[in-house]
Amino acid sequence: MDSQHPRHRVVIIGSGFGGLFAAKRLKRADVDVTLISRVSHHTFQPLLYQVATGILSQGEIAPATREILKRQKNAEVLLGEVSDIDLAARTVTSAVGPHSTVTEYDSLILAAGAETGYFGNDAFEPFAPGLKSIDDALELRARIYGAFEMAELEPDPASVEAWMTFVVVGAGPTGVELAGQIIELSRRTIKNDFRRIDPRRARVILIEGGDHVLASFGPKQSLKAQEQLARMGIDVRLQGMVDAVNETGVEVRYRDGRVEHIASRCVIWAAGVQASGLGAQVAEQSGAEVDRSGRVKVLPDLTLPGHPEVFVLGDMIALDDLPGVAQVAMQGAKFSAKKIRARLEDREEETTFHYFDKGSMATISRFRAVANVGRLELRGFIAWCAWLFIHILYLVGFQEKVSTLGHWAVAFIGRSRAERTFTLEQARGSLTNEREPRVPGTG
Amino acid sequence: MDSQHPRHRVVIIGSGFGGLFAAKRLKRADVDVTLISRVSHHTFQPLLYQVATGILSQGEIAPATREILKRQKNAEVLLGEVSDIDLAARTVTSAVGPHSTVTEYDSLILAAGAETGYFGNDAFEPFAPGLKSIDDALELRARIYGAFEMAELEPDPASVEAWMTFVVVGAGPTGVELAGQIIELSRRTIKNDFRRIDPRRARVILIEGGDHVLASFGPKQSLKAQEQLARMGIDVRLQGMVDAVNETGVEVRYRDGRVEHIASRCVIWAAGVQASGLGAQVAEQSGAEVDRSGRVKVLPDLTLPGHPEVFVLGDMIALDDLPGVAQVAMQGAKFSAKKIRARLEDREEETTFHYFDKGSMATISRFRAVANVGRLELRGFIAWCAWLFIHILYLVGFQEKVSTLGHWAVAFIGRSRAERTFTLEQARGSLTNEREPRVPGTG
Repeated sequence: MDSQHPRHRVVIIGSGFGGLFAAKRLKRADVDVTLISRVSHHTFQPLLYQVATGILSQGEIAPATREILKRQKNAEVLLGEVSDIDLAARTVTSAVGPHSTVTEYDSLILAAGAETGYFGNDAFEPFAPGLKSIDDALELRARIYGAFEMAELEPDPASVEAWMTFVVVGAGPTGVELAGQIIELSRRTIKNDFRRIDPRRARVILIEGGDHVLASFGPKQSLKAQEQLARMGIDVRLQGMVDAVNETGVEVRYRDGRVEHIASRCVIWAAGVQASGLGAQVAEQSGAEVDRSGRVKVLPDLTLPGHPEVFVLGDMIALDDLPGVAQVAMQGAKFSAKKIRARLEDREEETTFHYFDKGSMATISRFRAVANVGRLELRGFIAWCAWLFIHILYLVGFQEKVSTLGHWAVAFIGRSRAERTFTLEQARGSLTNEREPRVPGTG
Repeated sequence: MDSQHPRHRVVIIGSGFGGLFAAKRLKRADVDVTLISRVSHHTFQPLLYQVATGILSQGEIAPATREILKRQKNAEVLLGEVSDIDLAARTVTSAVGPHSTVTEYDSLILAAGAETGYFGNDAFEPFAPGLKSIDDALELRARIYGAFEMAELEPDPASVEAWMTFVVVGAGPTGVELAGQIIELSRRTIKNDFRRIDPRRARVILIEGGDHVLASFGPKQSLKAQEQLARMGIDVRLQGMVDAVNETGVEVRYRDGRVEHIASRCVIWAAGVQASGLGAQVAEQSGAEVDRSGRVKVLPDLTLPGHPEVFVLGDMIALDDLPGVAQVAMQGAKFSAKKIRARLEDREEETTFHYFDKGSMATISRFRAVANVGRLELRGFIAWCAWLFIHILYLVGFQEKVSTLGHWAVAFIGRSRAERTFTLEQARGSLTNEREPRVPGTG
């Protein structure tokens, strides 16, 4: 411990599941916690697809981080995009615009998460945004609802069809949930809203490179999910790799050699993630390895090789093929906090992080989901009830729970969606492809 | 009536109170209605200040226009920014990006509203945005909550003070409501959220050029409102004209000759409006007069001189000193729709629009408002209850009413605000003044 500082300083980068829960787990520790994040909110990522499709508002899934932590006196929250981590000097440099802040640490918890990854094809990004943040969700909302607005305006039938063709790339949980919500909104929510087009004729194409949708759920669940998606009218295309995305649509190359161009004005990328560039930065300084997706190969105790004071969590780590899910981040947060406390109290530290798989679930439509819990495979309405229960349970605050339940009633029991609104700026940028590619962030 | 078209075509420009209610009032008329708007939603403008200050979500006050009109079979909604109205050819040209649409009309209802007006000082705009749209409200939300985030980061005390000084220019209802909400959120909502700053020390300065706040409510109400604002901690400065606004703050010149520079990083402009540029465009073609604020001098029956087929509504008209309030637009909509029906059915038309003042109200804080209804002047809790009742009544849909009541309970009875979330892009743009001035719109 630095003699100038009475207390051990823990800096946490990121306000997602890893960062927020690490801060919370340090509540009773004799440390000063500084959480730095480029956004002022904690994003409940598993429900981003509902913000994108107009069911929930951003406030319901993204409460202010400092509000969540306001009663935790040993924690402070700083807004800032981290540009630099200096492992030797033990400092983190973050900034909002030109306002730069340097924060010193004794322990560092790196939980900056991941962004949408294009496997090196970053040129796809302006035409096929992903869904990793509130910014993304609000942009997709404008693109999805806006596509129908544009179709209503188009005199040319081929253009109408392109606007009414939605391509979702990647059939993991996010891709399946998005595809399901888009088809539901076209078939139910907005079916009577237009005069020139029939929204029910919208096509939703789900492209998956592998052999199965929701592959991580096992072959039986995958097959049942695929049947359900087909019954809903979603066009599932397996073994298809996206070779190109541009303003005209996507080019898909299938494993059997066929190549297909799908004309579409609304392409969503749910096919890959790329860990925050901060991982590569600390890896370079420490000599750690980084995988293709930018994830850091950490030691079994989640620390950076040669730097026991630096923990890496969640989507940023490559360890034992752990999946990129909230539970990995949250359990890693608990483990790291425990280790920091053990060190400070001179107790024995655990040397290996063991992930306990509590199960996984994905919704397919309203009232239909798949859920794997241990060896138990649930499907259909029962799985959906489990999904509902778990998500309400995990939503951060009481008011978010009540408000979200209300909006779910509106969307699932009723036919409406309470949060369809998009801004003029989004309409101008997203629907005309005049949007500039985003600057990839790091903090 | 055009022989090629079986039905009289009414084109409405704008989806605000005037445009939306004109469309609704034509429900049973033998006409085809096309409503063109640059935004896809109807904005309930009187509650924008609550979106800006984190109480309500955008969906609650801005439902999709086409959802509101979906059961009205004779009405269609088109997204588009109107660039050109040709009175001779009777066409309206609108566009989203490069996609241009030309729509023919037999009757035109021009209800494009007003934007924030800077009395010729458009250079103020990037530093002092107004509050006329959902875009504005979300930007102000980022600026207001973001200002506290920036203050928490600043090492320099003078900079901290500038970030924690909020200047609201204009003490009409919008200015008073914004000032009241900002002081309340600093004193209640976020008071425990920070570690380096004390949000309760935030200053809110309300600058008014005239002699009174809420001048339109009469001297007695004004004085009581001003006392209430002062008790809440708002610094009210009367008889002050803003000479300059830039990144350092505002320069105020008082009527007695004093000049003052107020250091502030969050300035909000609620001092003036400028009618949509489409008013000037049709005025030029018809020889009508336009006033300083871009409002068209219409005939007593709300039509453009020489063009009985063109109606102008709400914030776009200069007639009998009518105020820029929702009621003027809604009653004008009713009047115009009635005239169009009368013409088609060869009944006698009314020749003069008579505005019936149903009263006006403004909230000052939670549980405090002023309301004038006829000669009755209400104040305090009773006026606030009236405000609550009227606004719930006028909110468009049932789900909006329920959800809004929930969020009001959270904010007014509780201490929290459910919708504080702002995006990364907004944080980057608004807090660093890297935002580009908006392109003024017209449709």
